[in-house]
Amino acid sequence: MGKVKERVKSSESYCAQFQCAVELIGRRWTGAIVRGLLGGVYRFSDLKNAIPDLSEKMLSERLKELETMGLVKREVFPETPVRIEYILTPSGQALGNVMDVIGEWAHEWLENGKVK
Amino acid sequence: MGKVKERVKSSESYCAQFQCAVELIGRRWTGAIVRGLLGGVYRFSDLKNAIPDLSEKMLSERLKELETMGLVKREVFPETPVRIEYILTPSGQALGNVMDVIGEWAHEWLENGKVK
Repeated sequence: MGKVKERVKSSESYCAQFQCAVELIGRRWTGAIVRGLLGGVYRFSDLKNAIPDLSEKMLSERLKELETMGLVKREVFPETPVRIEYILTPSGQALGNVMDVIGEWAHEWLENGKVK
Repeated sequence: MGKVKERVKSSESYCAQFQCAVELIGRRWTGAIVRGLLGGVYRFSDLKNAIPDLSEKMLSERLKELETMGLVKREVFPETPVRIEYILTPSGQALGNVMDVIGEWAHEWLENGKVK
């Protein structure tokens, strides 16, 4: 009985974990921002330019979210003028694989935003 | 000049495609429902029971969405009582890989809904 309960509990927690991950990744612009950071775009204005239709307000909000979650670290270089870069932490870097697989699926199965 | 334009256009369309895929997958409950279907849960009531906190209304809405998108097919078996099953199409099946990779990331990096 204890074993069954444990299994149910662990499957529920796995499910909640998965749900959490999928919602995190699926939040509007988060995927595109992480892809930009993975691709070596580290500065606010470069990220903004790299992602069409993304407003400064939204980018700033999403970066703060990613920072709070521990996926991105904001680094300040004390130069003149000051340089600020957004760097993926190891957990953020690990999302690269997820982004690749989603990109592959999209490339194979989507056309003009519709499933082929 | 033509080539540069083309490259920009194709990178934009790739980006839009990726964005579309990531939002589709990230929609609340969609991931869990696709995972259920991948795991051999094909009937409405079984899906409802397999996913904690998912209401009938929401499940019905999401299944209709997935059907409209062409990721799921609703099959009616003319038995008594009538049997209705939801089956993933090839594009829906192909999401299995995406779901696995997200699950792996979640398993490795999340704990109680937070990044480790």
